[in-house]
Amino acid sequence: MTDFAATKALFSLPEGMIYLDGNSLGPMPRSAAERVRKTVEDEWGEMLITGWNKAGWMQQPTAIGDRIARLIGAEPGHVVMGDTLSIKVYQAVAAALELNPTRKVVLSDSGNFPSDLYMVEGLIKSLGPDYALRVVAPEEVSAHITEDVAVLMLTEVDYRTGRKHDMRALTEQAHAAGVLTVWDLAHSAGALPVDLAGCKADFAVGCTYKYLNSGPGGPAFIYVAPRHADTSRPALSGWLGHAAPFDFDLSYKPGSGIERMRVGTPPILQLAALEASMDIWDMADMADVRAKSIALCDLFITEVEARCPDLTLASPRDGRQRGSQVSFHFAQGYAAMQALIARGVVGDFRAPDIMRFGFTPLYIDEADVRAAVDILEDVMTNALWDRPEYHMRNAVT
Amino acid sequence: MTDFAATKALFSLPEGMIYLDGNSLGPMPRSAAERVRKTVEDEWGEMLITGWNKAGWMQQPTAIGDRIARLIGAEPGHVVMGDTLSIKVYQAVAAALELNPTRKVVLSDSGNFPSDLYMVEGLIKSLGPDYALRVVAPEEVSAHITEDVAVLMLTEVDYRTGRKHDMRALTEQAHAAGVLTVWDLAHSAGALPVDLAGCKADFAVGCTYKYLNSGPGGPAFIYVAPRHADTSRPALSGWLGHAAPFDFDLSYKPGSGIERMRVGTPPILQLAALEASMDIWDMADMADVRAKSIALCDLFITEVEARCPDLTLASPRDGRQRGSQVSFHFAQGYAAMQALIARGVVGDFRAPDIMRFGFTPLYIDEADVRAAVDILEDVMTNALWDRPEYHMRNAVT
Repeated sequence: MTDFAATKALFSLPEGMIYLDGNSLGPMPRSAAERVRKTVEDEWGEMLITGWNKAGWMQQPTAIGDRIARLIGAEPGHVVMGDTLSIKVYQAVAAALELNPTRKVVLSDSGNFPSDLYMVEGLIKSLGPDYALRVVAPEEVSAHITEDVAVLMLTEVDYRTGRKHDMRALTEQAHAAGVLTVWDLAHSAGALPVDLAGCKADFAVGCTYKYLNSGPGGPAFIYVAPRHADTSRPALSGWLGHAAPFDFDLSYKPGSGIERMRVGTPPILQLAALEASMDIWDMADMADVRAKSIALCDLFITEVEARCPDLTLASPRDGRQRGSQVSFHFAQGYAAMQALIARGVVGDFRAPDIMRFGFTPLYIDEADVRAAVDILEDVMTNALWDRPEYHMRNAVT
Repeated sequence: MTDFAATKALFSLPEGMIYLDGNSLGPMPRSAAERVRKTVEDEWGEMLITGWNKAGWMQQPTAIGDRIARLIGAEPGHVVMGDTLSIKVYQAVAAALELNPTRKVVLSDSGNFPSDLYMVEGLIKSLGPDYALRVVAPEEVSAHITEDVAVLMLTEVDYRTGRKHDMRALTEQAHAAGVLTVWDLAHSAGALPVDLAGCKADFAVGCTYKYLNSGPGGPAFIYVAPRHADTSRPALSGWLGHAAPFDFDLSYKPGSGIERMRVGTPPILQLAALEASMDIWDMADMADVRAKSIALCDLFITEVEARCPDLTLASPRDGRQRGSQVSFHFAQGYAAMQALIARGVVGDFRAPDIMRFGFTPLYIDEADVRAAVDILEDVMTNALWDRPEYHMRNAVT
């Protein structure tokens, strides 16, 4: 059983703040400060170039990838860290399209994070006019998995509403229609159990600075199913994905398996911070995290609906169909969120009218949820944005 | 006049080490430890998500880009940080090819860093069979700038020998033939004065962990000439290159100028380390750096040739045709370099037989060069690799 009191004590959370935005940027693990200091001063400062071997820098992308693999149900040795999520989306979709060469359509949905759609736009423009990106409403995805689709690219959990796709069912349907899948786990990894191997997902990508608490700009990860690992061509064929990077051959020869999805020099300071967070994640069972996440989200929904009637639930009511966040519609949501943040309850706002709250069991508990609703109720009751002087004050600051 | 005694005092250099490998990984600026600590503990730890605005994280890629612009002769506002050098090569070549759409050939040379060639291999494979990468010997580049070439992609300074291309002459010749240029400044930025604007370079890219001392895995930079900045299509069209990233539009619209070459979330911890290094670089005049670099390299060549006759110069003898490193051929170079490193003189080895030494005036002075040659002479005189017991010892360790 995961000891959430113990994990909470391992995070640095500012006094007086209830942080419900770990779905955007996770807080700092207390040990991250020392872990990064060690990498900067003892490794870079003392070992200099020899750190690549002596400190194990060169192996960090696969070593940490293996620890993330456990959280997302990936086979060991099939996840590697690097770059940003957008770059990893590009790699995955480019590889998937080539594995399905007779088809030219990438199917996605309007609930996907825009950068995923932008990266595919950029890719298909380079590939030529035969290729197309087809974007449908989230609830229409299943109906659009047709035999002309090459790749289904979805973010499992909608960044605005927390609505969760059924990865298993959609992957199965995709495969039956000859479609390969690319799953973006930005709001899944560390948020809920993912079973990539069991669902037979083809590719998956994700970031680490949200639920995985790696800090601002932490590296992304990519998963390639073992059956595709040695046949996927890396469109971004960088030297660290080469079979023998230090032979400095003039021609590219892809490394074996997931290694070929490495591109350039890995960001060692960011990986150090991530490693500190993984020490906490190693203490967690994703089933426990999921159970507590649903309980916290359910409590928040119940309390808010009882006490803040102006807010309308934007997330699925059924916890099984949700990620680890709860969103509410509210026309004055931007102003309300600013007022909440000023009172120490940190969520965020997404246009046009969504107030978003992330629930992260590693460091958020039931007392935090109750305290947050107390403040939210107070903010809503004393709604400054309904008063003219509020707008006057904001006009001059 | 740059005060090199002052800059040297600002670096952390391990006691007893003469570090001649700053062309591979620069040493730690003393202030980097505190600067990174501040970003981790005071910014990430205390500000959490609000750090993106409050701590100025979101502006770091262009703010630091402007400081690097001065060192490479770029117009202010036309350099941005992010990703790795390999990714930036891909962006630059992809954009340049589209600006020259009637031609399909990328010309490069066998002295280029292999990853640059690999990335273009990957790109042209995606673009289709009409495209080709043509790799010629460095001294034959000029003769191959023909009217079927779309893009000339070169690394200005050869990573093995330090041989320097004439950027001004080759760019002028390229333009006369209707060819666009992509310059990789990996061994130029911080090594010698670069005049991108004056040479009318079209695109340039580079890394920061070598001469710019940003630490392991520090971010890369990209420059796009002002005349191309608003017409270059970003093949890697990520959300932070969008005209309005936080509008979360479903379709990509490129940002203005260099902003469109941003892709994903910037690596804030790595940028903090780079910022500490830029505080030192702000004290340096590149003309002074160049003069001292040539003097140090010349001294090293003179002394080594006088005292270590088994080593054969691999770098150009004329300092104007060299970067900021000196390389020697030696058949037992790998063993000799290992012996040197064991004695505290850190250079590196590149296959098949190159011993490489970087000279970085910000923290290496004449006394270091003389001390390094003393040790090199001693290592060569007592050449262990000529004795059978050396190979026996190495066979069992």
